[in-house]
Amino acid sequence: MKAAIYKGIKQMACEERPAPAIVDAGDAIIRVVRACVCGSDLWFFRDGRDADTQTGHEAIGVVESVGDDVTVAKPGDFVVVPFPFSCGVCPVCKAGFESSCPHGGYFGSDEGMGCQAETLRVPHANGTLVVVPGDAKSFSDELLADLLALSDVMPTGYHAAASAEVKPGDTAVVFGDGAVGLCGVLSAKIRGAKRIIAMSRHADRQALAREFGATDIVAERGDEAVAKVMEMTGGYGADAVLECVGSAQSNDTAMKVARAGATVGRVGLPHDVEADIPGLFYRNVGLKGGPAPVRHYDTEVDHLLDLVMKGEIHPGRVFTAEFTLDEIQEAYAAMDERRTIKSLLRVSEV
Amino acid sequence: MKAAIYKGIKQMACEERPAPAIVDAGDAIIRVVRACVCGSDLWFFRDGRDADTQTGHEAIGVVESVGDDVTVAKPGDFVVVPFPFSCGVCPVCKAGFESSCPHGGYFGSDEGMGCQAETLRVPHANGTLVVVPGDAKSFSDELLADLLALSDVMPTGYHAAASAEVKPGDTAVVFGDGAVGLCGVLSAKIRGAKRIIAMSRHADRQALAREFGATDIVAERGDEAVAKVMEMTGGYGADAVLECVGSAQSNDTAMKVARAGATVGRVGLPHDVEADIPGLFYRNVGLKGGPAPVRHYDTEVDHLLDLVMKGEIHPGRVFTAEFTLDEIQEAYAAMDERRTIKSLLRVSEV
Repeated sequence: MKAAIYKGIKQMACEERPAPAIVDAGDAIIRVVRACVCGSDLWFFRDGRDADTQTGHEAIGVVESVGDDVTVAKPGDFVVVPFPFSCGVCPVCKAGFESSCPHGGYFGSDEGMGCQAETLRVPHANGTLVVVPGDAKSFSDELLADLLALSDVMPTGYHAAASAEVKPGDTAVVFGDGAVGLCGVLSAKIRGAKRIIAMSRHADRQALAREFGATDIVAERGDEAVAKVMEMTGGYGADAVLECVGSAQSNDTAMKVARAGATVGRVGLPHDVEADIPGLFYRNVGLKGGPAPVRHYDTEVDHLLDLVMKGEIHPGRVFTAEFTLDEIQEAYAAMDERRTIKSLLRVSEV
Repeated sequence: MKAAIYKGIKQMACEERPAPAIVDAGDAIIRVVRACVCGSDLWFFRDGRDADTQTGHEAIGVVESVGDDVTVAKPGDFVVVPFPFSCGVCPVCKAGFESSCPHGGYFGSDEGMGCQAETLRVPHANGTLVVVPGDAKSFSDELLADLLALSDVMPTGYHAAASAEVKPGDTAVVFGDGAVGLCGVLSAKIRGAKRIIAMSRHADRQALAREFGATDIVAERGDEAVAKVMEMTGGYGADAVLECVGSAQSNDTAMKVARAGATVGRVGLPHDVEADIPGLFYRNVGLKGGPAPVRHYDTEVDHLLDLVMKGEIHPGRVFTAEFTLDEIQEAYAAMDERRTIKSLLRVSEV
């Protein structure tokens, strides 16, 4: 099968690899229909990781075969593959945090478990897969893009909003104008925020942020951003803050613009982030978040899958360029150079 | 009037000071009936602060006089004085976080605003005072002690439980067996926790913890405590963690025993606390809390004042020794040396 392989800094390649087979009775094998490149993939694209490893943690596709223990899906079913795999039955999963399941893990490094490939092995299928209802052969490209967004960026944006405890009437600030940040804007809107301030300095992203529900755009960063948001909120700060970047500066600014008593919901992978622990304490500012429990939000809280199937939300609009697996280098480079918000990979047809 | 004065490390004195008068139209003057010594007072008792300052931030008493703008209470009313004073009308107060009101502050240092005294000036009375219904002259000593606990320790313990998001059926772990930790146990019980593990190594506190609802006692600390709690929770950690100490070790242990996806609700004043920011992220462990919004919990969420007036909870049981203002040195020393859980000060009668 064709699979995207990390070769070295800023070097991706599409290579032939053995197609994965069922290893465990809980496995499912998925023929990938669409995959994509994540903003978090850019961290290793820029800074390196072990070479010659498979990549990608977001996919939708058709179940090809399942192990003896798999009951959640059967061959032919159309599924969303959440970026974390999880047992689904332990106390962590039952509490709605499958993304931190101690028996699970993440796609995107082990052999046969990279989503940027023609075929994918999903362990713990019963606790992981999101089965999509309806006849997938009739799904439009737009619907497929919306469903693909449910594998990571949309529930991750939602996790930022849920962790920040966005509630009706709130003023929410969203850090990050990548696909996750934009889905954070959409999620704040779904949860009823009245005012949504998107921190963005790129015209294409500002436009999509407004389409997703942003009422205000702030282009400033650091201390200037703090001053601007404080001015916009009467000096008090925002009721809810979504941190969808992960950098030290973004986290620092996010914590500073939080209203006393507000919570920063963070989903950006933290890089050198520091927190003023006493400062957060005296201002009663909370810090929550982490890897998003995708299946939980797709199928339980606010049922994002339902919203997508009804056409009420279109998170797939974050995909502004499309590539094949053979074009994987360009798919990464286009995102790295901000020529696209998010790169979609057309791998096969339903 | 008589007032408790901090003189130097481990030295308190009862001295004559001018009785406070109304300064601002929003002020109320309170004749203190009962006050007490807080675990947080022991930080300066042991480590020092500016000498010759008034002390104490917990009191109940009778309104003597009010400024022209005060509508919440009139002379003769019986009130609980929350340890923070707050404007009551800004977005922070309206969000339920009066304890972080940018227009407010804390009792216990400014002249005329120490609660360990015969008379007390309360600024922002409308946004601060909790008026107690009924004929205070008929209140028993037990009821007065329960009401006094509503000025700080009970709502602070409740804030730990609320910040930790304790919900029915949870396993909660409570760090700290001082008055706040014990009230945290009681609060976890009120919120429906099924299993409450109290970290305590003192027999008198263990007994009160059990009376307040603790189902298990763990005497270990540090890594041994982590191992014990993990063993008790099937290796997963607790659904909710209440941090009521504030030390580096207690916070560290609290974060380690949190189940992935759980939140640490912290109310202990942080001293040299560090947080493993990436570690918390990948485990989706939240960190919330700070100074408790006393009036919010006393009169809104779960209405602790109602529970006290109905005799359904007895947080005043944390007072295991009683002193007069003249005995202030002994009141502090008894707590410092753990001869009492919390020292009550009998200042006047209703």
